[in-house]
Amino acid sequence: MQEWDIKVDEKYMREAIRQAKKAYALEEVPIGCVIVHEGKIIGRGYNRRTTDKNPLAHAELIAIKKASKKMNDWRLEDCTLYVTLEPCQMCSGAIVQTRTTRVVVGCMNPKAGCAGSVLNLLDVQEFNHQVELTTGVLEEECSSMMKQFFRELRDKQKKIKKKIQNQK
Amino acid sequence: MQEWDIKVDEKYMREAIRQAKKAYALEEVPIGCVIVHEGKIIGRGYNRRTTDKNPLAHAELIAIKKASKKMNDWRLEDCTLYVTLEPCQMCSGAIVQTRTTRVVVGCMNPKAGCAGSVLNLLDVQEFNHQVELTTGVLEEECSSMMKQFFRELRDKQKKIKKKIQNQK
Repeated sequence: MQEWDIKVDEKYMREAIRQAKKAYALEEVPIGCVIVHEGKIIGRGYNRRTTDKNPLAHAELIAIKKASKKMNDWRLEDCTLYVTLEPCQMCSGAIVQTRTTRVVVGCMNPKAGCAGSVLNLLDVQEFNHQVELTTGVLEEECSSMMKQFFRELRDKQKKIKKKIQNQK
Repeated sequence: MQEWDIKVDEKYMREAIRQAKKAYALEEVPIGCVIVHEGKIIGRGYNRRTTDKNPLAHAELIAIKKASKKMNDWRLEDCTLYVTLEPCQMCSGAIVQTRTTRVVVGCMNPKAGCAGSVLNLLDVQEFNHQVELTTGVLEEECSSMMKQFFRELRDKQKKIKKKIQNQK
C-alpha cells in the first residue's frame, strides 16, 4: 500500500471542512466534501438535503456529480474523495460505483457510517471495485464541528419547547 | 406483513419496463423505475449513465429525485419503488435514505445486486429504516430484456472486431 502525505491530506480535508461550514450556515448537518484528481480539486460539495428538500443532496453526491462533469466520465479513477464524516450507505455506494480510488474520512459515524462502522461498503470483495481508505484526518476538528452543531440544535429545541409551554 | 395485489404490482412494473425500453433505445443497459404514492406515479426514471456521463444517472436515482420534488420532501414515506433490475449498492442506499416503504423488483442481479444477492442493504437492522421487499414481478420479461440487450451488445462487439481484423 502507498504511503500518503498527511500534510497533503490535511490540506484537502481543510477545504472539505470549509465546505461543511457552508452547510452549518444553512443549519444543515455540517458535512463537506472535495474530490482531488492529479493535485487539483475537481469537485466540491456540502450537505443541502433539507434546504433543497432533495435526498440526493449529500455533500459527497454533489461533489461526485461535479467531478464527473469535469472528468467528462462517470468514472472517477485516480481520484481521492475527502469527506468530513464517514459516508452513509448511499454515498459509499456511489463511491464504489464511480470507481473512486481512495477515500479520506475526517471523523467516523458509528451509528450509520458505511466505511467501517455499521458496514464497510468500500471493501466488499464481490463488488468489481474496492476503495482504499484513510480515516482520522483532522478528526478532532471534524468531530467537534458536529458536536457543536448538535449541541446548538438541542438548545434551540429546548428554547422552542419552553416558549410553547409558556404560551399554554 | 401486508398482502400485495399482484395485478397492481404488475401494472406498475409494466410502466417500469416501458421506462427501461427508453434506456434500451439509447443503447444503455435497460433498467427502468417508477415510484408510486397513493396510487399515483410520482417519479419515473431510466438508466442514462453513459449518455449523460453521470454516475448518478441510474433509473432509481432519477425517479427518486423527481418523486422527492413532487412530495416536496427528501422523505418518500408511504411510497413504493418499482424497478426492473435489483438495485445496486448506491440505489439501495438511496432507497433506505429516503425511507421508501416498499421496493418491488423485476429480476435479480446476482453479481452486483444489493437487495439480497451480494448484500441486502434494504434490511440492515442497524440502520434507522428497513424496506419491505417483493421480488420476481414480471421477472421473465425483465430478465429476457436484459439478456437480449447483452446478446446484441456482444454481436456488435464481434462485428467491430471482425471489421478491424479485415482492415489489417
